[in-house]
Amino acid sequence: MDVGSYVVEKAKTASRAARILSNMGPNLKNRALDDMAEALQNNKELILQANKLDLDNAKKSGKGKAFIDRLELNQKRIDSMAGGLIKVASLPDPIGEVSKMWKRPNGLRIGKVRVPLGTIGIIYEARPNVTVDAAALCLKSGNSVILRGGKEAINSNVAIYNTINKAAVSAGLPEGAIEFIDITEREAVETLMKLNEYVDVLIPRGGRGLINSIVKNSTVPVIQTGIGNCHVYVDESADLSMAENIVLNAKTQRPAVCNAMETLLVHKNAAENFLPHLGKTLKSLGVEIRGCSETKKLIPYAKLATEEDYDTEFLDLILAVKVVNSLDEAMDHIYKYGTKHSEAIITNDYNASQRFLNEVDAAAVYVNASTRFTDGEQFGFGAEIGISTQKLHARGPMGLNELTTSKYVVYGEGQIRK
Amino acid sequence: MDVGSYVVEKAKTASRAARILSNMGPNLKNRALDDMAEALQNNKELILQANKLDLDNAKKSGKGKAFIDRLELNQKRIDSMAGGLIKVASLPDPIGEVSKMWKRPNGLRIGKVRVPLGTIGIIYEARPNVTVDAAALCLKSGNSVILRGGKEAINSNVAIYNTINKAAVSAGLPEGAIEFIDITEREAVETLMKLNEYVDVLIPRGGRGLINSIVKNSTVPVIQTGIGNCHVYVDESADLSMAENIVLNAKTQRPAVCNAMETLLVHKNAAENFLPHLGKTLKSLGVEIRGCSETKKLIPYAKLATEEDYDTEFLDLILAVKVVNSLDEAMDHIYKYGTKHSEAIITNDYNASQRFLNEVDAAAVYVNASTRFTDGEQFGFGAEIGISTQKLHARGPMGLNELTTSKYVVYGEGQIRK
Repeated sequence: MDVGSYVVEKAKTASRAARILSNMGPNLKNRALDDMAEALQNNKELILQANKLDLDNAKKSGKGKAFIDRLELNQKRIDSMAGGLIKVASLPDPIGEVSKMWKRPNGLRIGKVRVPLGTIGIIYEARPNVTVDAAALCLKSGNSVILRGGKEAINSNVAIYNTINKAAVSAGLPEGAIEFIDITEREAVETLMKLNEYVDVLIPRGGRGLINSIVKNSTVPVIQTGIGNCHVYVDESADLSMAENIVLNAKTQRPAVCNAMETLLVHKNAAENFLPHLGKTLKSLGVEIRGCSETKKLIPYAKLATEEDYDTEFLDLILAVKVVNSLDEAMDHIYKYGTKHSEAIITNDYNASQRFLNEVDAAAVYVNASTRFTDGEQFGFGAEIGISTQKLHARGPMGLNELTTSKYVVYGEGQIRK
Repeated sequence: MDVGSYVVEKAKTASRAARILSNMGPNLKNRALDDMAEALQNNKELILQANKLDLDNAKKSGKGKAFIDRLELNQKRIDSMAGGLIKVASLPDPIGEVSKMWKRPNGLRIGKVRVPLGTIGIIYEARPNVTVDAAALCLKSGNSVILRGGKEAINSNVAIYNTINKAAVSAGLPEGAIEFIDITEREAVETLMKLNEYVDVLIPRGGRGLINSIVKNSTVPVIQTGIGNCHVYVDESADLSMAENIVLNAKTQRPAVCNAMETLLVHKNAAENFLPHLGKTLKSLGVEIRGCSETKKLIPYAKLATEEDYDTEFLDLILAVKVVNSLDEAMDHIYKYGTKHSEAIITNDYNASQRFLNEVDAAAVYVNASTRFTDGEQFGFGAEIGISTQKLHARGPMGLNELTTSKYVVYGEGQIRK
């Protein structure tokens, strides 16, 4: 069978499974998730052996430390994946909720019911834990899932997939509830992106290159995740000690993630009291600063920022800084360079806080808090499949509810349209 | 300027306008809508003259009666467009609603606020009223809109657009709040479909060809509307007089629309008492019947249905009929041939009604009512931009709320992530 037909068959099976899953109550789904967790624990050795093959290949082909770290599994990480499954099992089932119901003058009663999306395709890179996390969230929300991980993790993923899929089917989930495409040729993804008949949505999880390529080429609807050129704006009225705490947290607590700050904007009236001390602290933490000419006056070791620096998601210990003349200039800067992910203002001025909340267009807008909170767990959703940076369907952290859609159920007594 | 650059400029202007519109209160938007209505009334003669050019061209090029009917304007239709604007102005403003707000253990308060999508592109065919209806709904929900109507209506559309846009800008809406692409070359649409930077969503309104071409080629997210291969299933327990009323309504009240019934499924135990009488009534109403062999025994004038008939959205006085052995067979048929638009069961059996509501996957599922009610007005939304047949973002009739998205606003007191 050629690659295309193989992928189509997998998608068909997943689509048939979706029909069964959509009407499955919470008990069976939760039992399957618990059994999958147990199976992961029981197959640890096998999974670690497979992972070792991937790690050896990665090292041989000269992959960097960050890459190896994302790829590597160990006892603790497998425990953590198993724990994730049990946690998802314990979350409330989103399916069947009637968000509203009303009666029309003609007597029709119309209800809006939460139902699964159907079949979800997840395209990801070298993190084998996505295989488990994504499957758990999709199944819990009544969807079947088609997984397609990166070729660098293929041995790990196959071992994990075989483990959890066997457990899921033994627990009573339909064949095809979890599909995994074990073909690493690019053609497999190209086929998947065109299967509108069987796949309801694609969620790419990975770097900008992966996401852009899928957005550009997929005819299946895509939910875009994860590109964050996030700003913190320190207003002239800010509590500067709070501002420094938040800036340090947003930049250095985990610089490689999408909700980390990339550019700091400082009101000119706060700059003199704020930047010199902050500059010293950032220097001691190994943060490179690229600032405007005003910044350079106050932080001598800063490099001069280019236009491109303000447009870059560094994902690293690099911070762009700009001194601005007003709240409006800060918001204009965010409008021009932001990616509508997470934006924060540090202020004690009521009007400034309200204007920022109302006028800045982003998935999450903060007053006096770190941008690092844009996260499903931190928002209280219990789990997260990613952070949507698009406006359609879901925006911001996506939990179980964001993996569902609705249908209208209409109760009549013979009504016809006049 | 070439076509591509011209369209990009329009989209940029619309995108800038969206930023202003998103923070505009209801009063100014409503005044603009009222002024647009008045301007339409004042410019009736001009618009009708322009429409006459389009009608003459359509007749010259041999367009059919249905096409001419969609294209034609008259005093009454212009009144109706103006009335639509006034009605949309009177609807509640959807923007700013906080659908939920909660407090996290760390003290962060997180609210989910309804905000506009941004810039909406509407691609449509020969109905000039869409120019007004779509602009009204997009503006009311705080979005800017880029309109691109079919070339056959270009004179009508330009006259209407100039009228309403002038009124909107005079009332205080920003330039670009309503953009109209007056270039009829296909290249204009091709450019628009790739402008992810400036356009947040495209909504095609028209036939299957238009919709499929946009879904296949657009990198901007698309909301698919309007393909409906809808079924009515008459269960063995149905009140047959109610069933006949509903079938007649769903097939004949307006056969050319997407929520009209295309296939009738009848339980074998109801067929003998139901089909012969129904067949006579349908014949008297000029409906052609294409049925299975069982149907032919009970409705002698019926033609034998092909596989293709069950797969066709006739949009005409043609009905496919199939006698089925069970509820399950009916639901399997709907699963195989349905387009997930609107599906109805006629039954007095509680379990059958519940199974149908739960198990049939469609935007709207009915018990004992006509599929013709799948419509924004009929659902009580006040207005409708179309009926979404996809699962992402919006499903079923789309009113003002479906032209919005959300953002999270987060109120802190210096919280940082540990």
